Amino acid sequence: MTTKKLLLLSTGGTIASVVSDSGLVPGESGESLLKMLGRIPYKIVVKDILELDSSNIQPEEWKLIAREIYKYRNDYDGIVVSHGTDTMAYTASMLTFMLQNINLPVVLTGSQVPMNVILSDAPGNLRVAFAAAAKCAPGIYLAFDRQVILGCRSVKVRTTSFNAFESVNVPPVARVTSDGFEIQKAEKVSNGQCKLNTDIDANVSLVKLFPGFDPRLLHAMAQSGCHGIVIEAYGLGGMTYIRRNLVAAVGKLIRRGIPVIASSQCLYERSDLTKYEVGQQALLQGAISAHDMTSESAITKLMWALGQGMDVAAVAKFFNTNVAGEVTLN
Amino acid sequence: MTTKKLLLLSTGGTIASVVSDSGLVPGESGESLLKMLGRIPYKIVVKDILELDSSNIQPEEWKLIAREIYKYRNDYDGIVVSHGTDTMAYTASMLTFMLQNINLPVVLTGSQVPMNVILSDAPGNLRVAFAAAAKCAPGIYLAFDRQVILGCRSVKVRTTSFNAFESVNVPPVARVTSDGFEIQKAEKVSNGQCKLNTDIDANVSLVKLFPGFDPRLLHAMAQSGCHGIVIEAYGLGGMTYIRRNLVAAVGKLIRRGIPVIASSQCLYERSDLTKYEVGQQALLQGAISAHDMTSESAITKLMWALGQGMDVAAVAKFFNTNVAGEVTLN
Repeated sequence: MTTKKLLLLSTGGTIASVVSDSGLVPGESGESLLKMLGRIPYKIVVKDILELDSSNIQPEEWKLIAREIYKYRNDYDGIVVSHGTDTMAYTASMLTFMLQNINLPVVLTGSQVPMNVILSDAPGNLRVAFAAAAKCAPGIYLAFDRQVILGCRSVKVRTTSFNAFESVNVPPVARVTSDGFEIQKAEKVSNGQCKLNTDIDANVSLVKLFPGFDPRLLHAMAQSGCHGIVIEAYGLGGMTYIRRNLVAAVGKLIRRGIPVIASSQCLYERSDLTKYEVGQQALLQGAISAHDMTSESAITKLMWALGQGMDVAAVAKFFNTNVAGEVTLN
Repeated sequence: MTTKKLLLLSTGGTIASVVSDSGLVPGESGESLLKMLGRIPYKIVVKDILELDSSNIQPEEWKLIAREIYKYRNDYDGIVVSHGTDTMAYTASMLTFMLQNINLPVVLTGSQVPMNVILSDAPGNLRVAFAAAAKCAPGIYLAFDRQVILGCRSVKVRTTSFNAFESVNVPPVARVTSDGFEIQKAEKVSNGQCKLNTDIDANVSLVKLFPGFDPRLLHAMAQSGCHGIVIEAYGLGGMTYIRRNLVAAVGKLIRRGIPVIASSQCLYERSDLTKYEVGQQALLQGAISAHDMTSESAITKLMWALGQGMDVAAVAKFFNTNVAGEVTLN
């Protein structure tokens, strides 16, 4: 058995943070992370591509990370991306759309405590990430706290605990047990050609409904240049229509060519606009269901769709398409 | 032992829904719910005060519900409010602020399946709610799936399962076990006088950050009449400040007299702006931490604070005050 050759792309984050006068800031290189990790049974090459707190990772960085992965996709058996936890689920979701049919495992990881702290979760997380990059089927994943999660199903749900991420609405792809690396579900490997497509339109908005929400805010967003909106509606996707008629406001936006995606503000389970009158009303106005997607996947899928020049009808069709496991369709 | 006398205020919701051509709509009266429930060991009086899907319950209905509770607070041992699940956590949170020092237990409940369906969760939920209204200390609660949760800590996290609600960042107040009703934590009972105060300002906004978020959207919200904003920031409360300088935009809003509350988009655990540079920057600009509050509590607390005429400094002080268990302060 030949030793697997893996690439570590380092982007900063808590895992690489050091203490400064103004709080924790990224400072360690990928090489330094690797040195602190100790011996692992893979040949690792390191490239430092960013040094950012992930609160500052944005569409420009997504493109850079996607390009680096694409560039090295045939030179390694797998790629690990070290990344801050705050926006890791967003990056993992967007890479899923930018790098469709990726031909090797790409595994994002990070930690809640910096690598240079003795009781940090970073060594464990890096080990799982490298193992996943060596063993999983091609795809975009997130490794954290002894779990490997499909990137486009990952959500950061805890701010401080080690089990910060959850695999939402699907089981994790793999778990570490005392038997080693247990792949729970073999991912269907696509036969398509990997394409890099970083054309996105980030002029979108993510709105969380609350009672009293003024529908004029949607209008104000459209006026200020918003090209698409994800609404985290109530429960299965219900929206207010008495007095503050959000349903009518959604209809107006859609007729102006601005797609509106209805997801649920409930973390778990699907949205379904067909079950209640409050959902059917929204559906009649042209609202597009996010089904059981995470908000992270819904907003990045919308950006990517708009970046391809899709109109409302094309966006609706695209949201009824499972690109890489991000959505469960009936 | 005298039989406890309880009031059921019925407002609609799935629990009272019937099938219609356009999906499920509220239709059953409180009396009808009670008839389907069968015998329980309390004396129940029913009043139908609303017949709404809770997607349509808004500030006007909050005021009405609060007034009804206040009106009957000395005539009963406890009050149950039947309510749709979609916005129940918002209503429970707002009632906490509108009815401070409430002098009896008020328990919201509802169901995922209408009462008139044989396998509905409604009978079980109503039973727990009545038991809680008979047994708990004074306060605002939510009863669901054999748990009683402090109202201002409740979040709807599942769209379809029976365990739809979670008690976020504190344990549930009580659980039903085979030993009966087990109060896990005796709530501290306030000695203050119950006051009804329904003055709120609903011109607020709840923003969920995502990478690429355009800070001009905050400006657009302020322009369209928004008097306060809750930002669901990343992780412990981090906000972008490179290129899209959200931190600076927050500072500008605050200097214009618009309070900005930083909460976390992670469902669980606290926000803490002191730990990372990205949080400290926001803190320096005057962002107010939501600590470990739910978004539901943060947005309703902000509406109530603004309704009292509080300025930014007063709002900041109010968010560092634990009114009724909604926040854990160091």
